[in-house]
Amino acid sequence: MTSPFHSVDALPEKTLVPGITGKLVHTDGMTILHAFIEKDAVLPEHHHPHEQITNIISGELEMTIGGETKVCKPGDVITIASNVPHSARALTQVKVIDAFQPVREDYKKL
Amino acid sequence: MTSPFHSVDALPEKTLVPGITGKLVHTDGMTILHAFIEKDAVLPEHHHPHEQITNIISGELEMTIGGETKVCKPGDVITIASNVPHSARALTQVKVIDAFQPVREDYKKL
Repeated sequence: MTSPFHSVDALPEKTLVPGITGKLVHTDGMTILHAFIEKDAVLPEHHHPHEQITNIISGELEMTIGGETKVCKPGDVITIASNVPHSARALTQVKVIDAFQPVREDYKKL
Repeated sequence: MTSPFHSVDALPEKTLVPGITGKLVHTDGMTILHAFIEKDAVLPEHHHPHEQITNIISGELEMTIGGETKVCKPGDVITIASNVPHSARALTQVKVIDAFQPVREDYKKL
């Protein structure tokens, strides 16, 4: 049986888009992404069938979700429903923890 | 449409067990719990059909998952499969972000 205990430090670093790297943990039904975003990095508008919940850990991230824009700060929790277009731009260096369901099979191929 | 933007500060504080409070955000398929655990608080062994991923944000939390015990620290990610018994004891004040799927309908009643 796989150990239930993982350390972000020990996980391989994946590049998601230029300026955004992440560490990934998958279960049967969810993916957790610890993402590290450089200042001024941009996540272009995209959408996916997976539900997403973004938790801002540090920094300031301007997010646009379904046409609504907000500068998100630590303690903010952002919910993105299935297939809703979203984008982001880092105003500072940013750390987030994203939860997805179902599993991001596409991220397993990174 | 409900706003996708939530602030942990603005969410109602729920008591889960003595010494453990939390702020909850639910989507169609997931629940996110920002939990605040007092030093020496104990989460007794329990299990639930929901998958759980615990992200340690601060502090030290001794967790026992399916009989395996580890002192978990910031940057640790703990995966708990459906119906696996687990318990925890806070060695310090602790903050965690837990993701569950499917939704914790029981937490909506707190």
